Amino acid sequence: MSTQQRSEETRSRILQAALGCFSERGYDGTGVAEICQRAGVSKGAFYHHFASKQALFVALLAQWLAVLDDQAAVQRAPGATAPQALQAMVALLQQVFRDASGRLTMFLEFWRQAARDEAIWQATMAPFDRYHALLAGIVRAGIAEGSLRPCDPDNAARVIVSMAVGMVLQSALDPTGSDWQQAAQAGMDLLLAGLVRRAP
Amino acid sequence: MSTQQRSEETRSRILQAALGCFSERGYDGTGVAEICQRAGVSKGAFYHHFASKQALFVALLAQWLAVLDDQAAVQRAPGATAPQALQAMVALLQQVFRDASGRLTMFLEFWRQAARDEAIWQATMAPFDRYHALLAGIVRAGIAEGSLRPCDPDNAARVIVSMAVGMVLQSALDPTGSDWQQAAQAGMDLLLAGLVRRAP
Repeated sequence: MSTQQRSEETRSRILQAALGCFSERGYDGTGVAEICQRAGVSKGAFYHHFASKQALFVALLAQWLAVLDDQAAVQRAPGATAPQALQAMVALLQQVFRDASGRLTMFLEFWRQAARDEAIWQATMAPFDRYHALLAGIVRAGIAEGSLRPCDPDNAARVIVSMAVGMVLQSALDPTGSDWQQAAQAGMDLLLAGLVRRAP
Repeated sequence: MSTQQRSEETRSRILQAALGCFSERGYDGTGVAEICQRAGVSKGAFYHHFASKQALFVALLAQWLAVLDDQAAVQRAPGATAPQALQAMVALLQQVFRDASGRLTMFLEFWRQAARDEAIWQATMAPFDRYHALLAGIVRAGIAEGSLRPCDPDNAARVIVSMAVGMVLQSALDPTGSDWQQAAQAGMDLLLAGLVRRAP
């Protein structure tokens, strides 16, 4: 194993240990010492990778979202119309719904800390803004290409993000309460019924 | 003050004290003794009103939702069409958006306990089901009266509830990030554009 591989493996082990600690005892109830013990690394190794417990917490959030971001970039196939691109975005939620229930405790912890800590708040809000911008861009392109009727792209993006956030939260609380993926697809179809330009 | 008034006043003081304790130290970190001390009541008085800390927690959730439920019942004016009834429901959110930020900590605490405690989970999920049923009923009536095009009322209700949940959560995290009431109105207009039956 190269030095770089070993370093990445250590970083990943710290993130995994932190996830366990934060989920069980919360952010406030967890110290760097406990994370190090659980990960089997020295404090020196910890501080080589993370400046602070806060920085680790933000990295944990970023790690989760990176997977989704990569997929979102891939999904935007060249030549797809705006309605096709929006439906592809909904398909991405499948993985999120699958993971949501097991991650609820950590998500609630992110939001709780966001209310108290400016840096965590920034990291927590950034993905909302990023998805908002991505979706507003698709809607804007759809209006320009004539596949969507003229509307306020920011309003449309806010509705889509909010619907997704609301469904993910409900799916985390009640995984078997609905077929959430089907609900998200039906929701997007319903929105598209209002957004799509009709033949004159 | 009558005995009944005094009893209600005591109950309300216990709920208020519990809200403070739970917000500051969380559900797990709060004991009945601390709530009694903060409320200035005896343990006897506490157990006269609430069977347990859990029962108090559920009552606190029910108290918050009762205000919204009363308004929802009032808002459904006789003779209103389904689109008018749906727009009136959105107007209800104004109060929710106003309170959301100050209540975030308690809401996160409700959801956290819901993941661990069956009775709290039931109490937490009940309002989602209630609003879902209310909205699906309005959509069904709209299809019957011809103001809405044929669609699956459950899908439509799920979209509306999810959009509202997503917006309330975002407004709690970021009260000044958007004009949330305006966003909710624009969102409902967008949904109605797809739902409303057009002149043939």
